[in-house]
Amino acid sequence: MPVVTIQRIEPGRRMSGAVVHGDTVYLAGQVGNPGDDVTQQTKTVLERVDALLHAAGTDKSKLLQATIWLADMKDFAAMNAVWDGWVDPENTPARATGESKLAAPEYLVEIIVVAAR
Amino acid sequence: MPVVTIQRIEPGRRMSGAVVHGDTVYLAGQVGNPGDDVTQQTKTVLERVDALLHAAGTDKSKLLQATIWLADMKDFAAMNAVWDGWVDPENTPARATGESKLAAPEYLVEIIVVAAR
Amino acid sequence: MPVVTIQRIEPGRRMSGAVVHGDTVYLAGQVGNPGDDVTQQTKTVLERVDALLHAAGTDKSKLLQATIWLADMKDFAAMNAVWDGWVDPENTPARATGESKLAAPEYLVEIIVVAAR
Repeated sequence: MPVVTIQRIEPGRRMSGAVVHGDTVYLAGQVGNPGDDVTQQTKTVLERVDALLHAAGTDKSKLLQATIWLADMKDFAAMNAVWDGWVDPENTPARATGESKLAAPEYLVEIIVVAAR
Repeated sequence: MPVVTIQRIEPGRRMSGAVVHGDTVYLAGQVGNPGDDVTQQTKTVLERVDALLHAAGTDKSKLLQATIWLADMKDFAAMNAVWDGWVDPENTPARATGESKLAAPEYLVEIIVVAAR
Repeated sequence: MPVVTIQRIEPGRRMSGAVVHGDTVYLAGQVGNPGDDVTQQTKTVLERVDALLHAAGTDKSKLLQATIWLADMKDFAAMNAVWDGWVDPENTPARATGESKLAAPEYLVEIIVVAAR
């Protein structure tokens, strides 16, 4: 089997922003800015997803899988309103949403994406 | 590198039921029917997994990864009893189970699957 | 498309320790030993990850994605201290950390890894 290359984007000592393996791109869980409401945090998360996908040479039309963590499921509708306006309606990923407290109480939403390129 | 095709199964404007990327299949998180107990919800989840895998041209003998969210970990044994009767014992996936409240309080279990085809 | 082989490592009737699909390796969620503190549990988790990656013919320098579940987010810093000393700083994965109660109350941390080989 030929060797498949690994490319790390925004590499850090603890984690990388994204890792490209062959034609599959794994993004780190993205969060918004503490103090913002869930609508704005979701917008920021998706802007960061767009930027990382772009850096990896792909875009949201090639999303494969999205895992969404909400600190409180009461924010489900507000998150979905932003998601529905962002996602490419012709090319939506497999998705799952669960409730999970995040790294700090100020974070309301985190989204983990796998995409093709 | 040759272009790898993406196929979307049961596509919707918010998410797709499954996304096939080359020979890897990502399923949306599957849930059962509100009001059913965890045993019946797990059965329904796994029937839906079977149907989506079939639509993607594969089956449970090619499971790679399963992530299971239980709304309450007290249902671990009941979920496992259904899982153990369903999974192909010769071809089990890598699996992880965590507690996570789901999109509505009536949902007791959600399973997220990645498979080969 | 050529058939891509699936190899199961430490296969069991409920789950496998790892599943290799082509050049991608999916590990089951790894936990430590009940009764240990989060520092020791994280060390044990990462030793088990190393052992499974080795059995799959790869190592931590090829990590693609890591999902970390903490039973209580208060353990974030203690987990990170062990993680930071373990991970290959030149080859870090995309990572996400959420709070999720685990299969038994004694388990404080679970880590789910995808790697290349």
